[in-house]
Amino acid sequence: MAYELPGQRSETVRRSNLSAILRELHNRGPVSRSELVTRTGLTRSAIRGLIGELALTGLVSEERGTPQGTPGRPSPLVRPSPRGAIVLALEIAVDSLAVAAVGIGGEVIDVVRLDRPRDRSSVDETIADLAALARAVQRRLPDTEGMIGVGVAIVGIVRRDAGVVTMAPNLGWRDVALAERVADALGTSLPIAVANEADLGALAELRRGAAVGAEHVLFISGEVGVGGSLIVDGKQLTGADGYAGEVGHMPVNPDGRTCRCGSVGCWETEIGEGALLRRAGHPPDAGREEVEAVLLEAAAGSPEVLEALDAVGRWLGFGLAGLVNVFNPQVVVLGGLFGRIHPFVEARLGAELDRLALPQTRAALRVVPAALGVDAPLLGAAELAFEPLLADPSLWTRPAVATA
Amino acid sequence: MAYELPGQRSETVRRSNLSAILRELHNRGPVSRSELVTRTGLTRSAIRGLIGELALTGLVSEERGTPQGTPGRPSPLVRPSPRGAIVLALEIAVDSLAVAAVGIGGEVIDVVRLDRPRDRSSVDETIADLAALARAVQRRLPDTEGMIGVGVAIVGIVRRDAGVVTMAPNLGWRDVALAERVADALGTSLPIAVANEADLGALAELRRGAAVGAEHVLFISGEVGVGGSLIVDGKQLTGADGYAGEVGHMPVNPDGRTCRCGSVGCWETEIGEGALLRRAGHPPDAGREEVEAVLLEAAAGSPEVLEALDAVGRWLGFGLAGLVNVFNPQVVVLGGLFGRIHPFVEARLGAELDRLALPQTRAALRVVPAALGVDAPLLGAAELAFEPLLADPSLWTRPAVATA
Repeated sequence: MAYELPGQRSETVRRSNLSAILRELHNRGPVSRSELVTRTGLTRSAIRGLIGELALTGLVSEERGTPQGTPGRPSPLVRPSPRGAIVLALEIAVDSLAVAAVGIGGEVIDVVRLDRPRDRSSVDETIADLAALARAVQRRLPDTEGMIGVGVAIVGIVRRDAGVVTMAPNLGWRDVALAERVADALGTSLPIAVANEADLGALAELRRGAAVGAEHVLFISGEVGVGGSLIVDGKQLTGADGYAGEVGHMPVNPDGRTCRCGSVGCWETEIGEGALLRRAGHPPDAGREEVEAVLLEAAAGSPEVLEALDAVGRWLGFGLAGLVNVFNPQVVVLGGLFGRIHPFVEARLGAELDRLALPQTRAALRVVPAALGVDAPLLGAAELAFEPLLADPSLWTRPAVATA
Repeated sequence: MAYELPGQRSETVRRSNLSAILRELHNRGPVSRSELVTRTGLTRSAIRGLIGELALTGLVSEERGTPQGTPGRPSPLVRPSPRGAIVLALEIAVDSLAVAAVGIGGEVIDVVRLDRPRDRSSVDETIADLAALARAVQRRLPDTEGMIGVGVAIVGIVRRDAGVVTMAPNLGWRDVALAERVADALGTSLPIAVANEADLGALAELRRGAAVGAEHVLFISGEVGVGGSLIVDGKQLTGADGYAGEVGHMPVNPDGRTCRCGSVGCWETEIGEGALLRRAGHPPDAGREEVEAVLLEAAAGSPEVLEALDAVGRWLGFGLAGLVNVFNPQVVVLGGLFGRIHPFVEARLGAELDRLALPQTRAALRVVPAALGVDAPLLGAAELAFEPLLADPSLWTRPAVATA
């Protein structure tokens, strides 16, 4: 139900139609003109005109269709032109930094990832390392003329409209004007969009991963912290100030432990990386390599580790049951650590959902591991950077865009 | 961010413009033509034409504007015509039934409420009592020509698209085809929409109560059960199958009690009417009169009751902190029991939110009691019944509508 629908002028229709077509091509790949007619509900001649406009700006190309065994001329095939619009995607995780160049349509042109020690996570060091990586990627591109924007994924709480990281407990950051800092470091005037890495991982899984086609998705990702993101009616839930999705800081245990965020009994303290390590008898702050060791022990059948994983699975189910009852999603996507431990916790997690979720919301629910692996947030950062172009392709004409 | 925007034909524009104008008038009341230009972004002549169309169907009327001290002719005042479209709103609560007739623009033309004993809540008895009430209201209307639909609020989990109550634990109902049953009992062919009463209470508070103007609202209502509803970007969150918002069945206590729904440790078992009665030393299933007695004891300063209320406030804050971190709403509206106890729990609830919610999401959050009182779900049922007309006024021509 839409409660408030703004009046629409006819001249806005063309813009939204261009947007609809470019989104189809970007999200779902090459398609015939006649299929675009079916998907958009627009007329054949409208589609022809709109594709002509997009082709002029170099965003799409057309080629002769292959005969389908049906009478008449085959419908031309329309495809996005990856070099027609390129974005730079950056990721700031706790243990690594990454940069990718991605073309319209989602083609990853180049990607690099750099592991880093946890004691090198100050704002200045991070920005310097990230800029060096970005320059390396940019140098390898044949040209940067098609570059239209930069997207940044960060393990922290972000005010998207301002490009500010208000709090990143696992980096020790507070109130960092990240968009500005990245613009300075890259020496670019391109638009820079910043968002939480769990949100962006969810966006990538929705567009190109485990949740393609779903409209109601709960994404939960375990790293040092626990991030989450909610897709409602195909849109990412951002909340009043852009802080929505902080599922890791949902209190679940009234008698629980103090969390990094300052609160007590947060879900993160029961299911995060630290909780798994603690339960498995490892030092809770030992980081990623220790987690790998724990997963190896699990694979080898260590009873202590399997018991630890069982406890994590139980708490995972406890928190998910609540979220499932509140959101009624079609799919829960388990990312990061939770995707890795999925085989070990699947049974317990399912049993807890059976026990605690309402039968109606449980019935049609799928719980699946993420499909895009460690690069999901990076791919999501690229999607974020494409958003202004996808929302209004008519604004985008190559000469008007500054280059990095 | 909209990920998928369907192509738009020009002929749909007129329809959505009619809808935008009728919604403005319905939601916000009489307004000058020139103010409609400002609010909708449409041209003066477009507005004139669209208002003319709406006036022809009897939905709105125009009168000469009053001079504003500015030069030129005052802009005509446009107002909804309450008798131009009337809906019947029905409510099935645990302890009462209610019926109202409401005109476009929200004018309550008539309303009756009937308390009932809890042992008279079978499907047959309920439908019979409700239909008798509805007939009484209809008989008092001057005519039923403008009647365009029926909305039903029920304390249960509803599949809206089918008009089916899948589960109403506090009535003992399962899989009741309520829309069909109501149509038969009223002998009407009008469209009948059914939804959860907490959802509808939230809708009413959003349109005409404590949350007017807000876009991100969490509504939580305490009755025999605990209902909730989430407004995200101005729209009610329904979830994949229409079951979203079941906050009362979010597990909060791993060591908690068995809930009516079959699960364990649900929020409802800590903050619902039964939990308050139990903590205050009253029989937990004693119903509404016992709750009134407890509230009187609280007002008289009974330490045992104040302690019970404090515990409810603490658990209220525990669960709300999680929802606030996940949704980042602007407003939390406390309805039903929670609105009544608000003065007693306000301080504790606020302190728990300070302790457990993220500072970013807590900062701009308002927590307020509901404004519309006990009739909020009934008024929401009326809004639900108006929705098809508001979404597409162009379909609505009086001769084509069957009358009850």
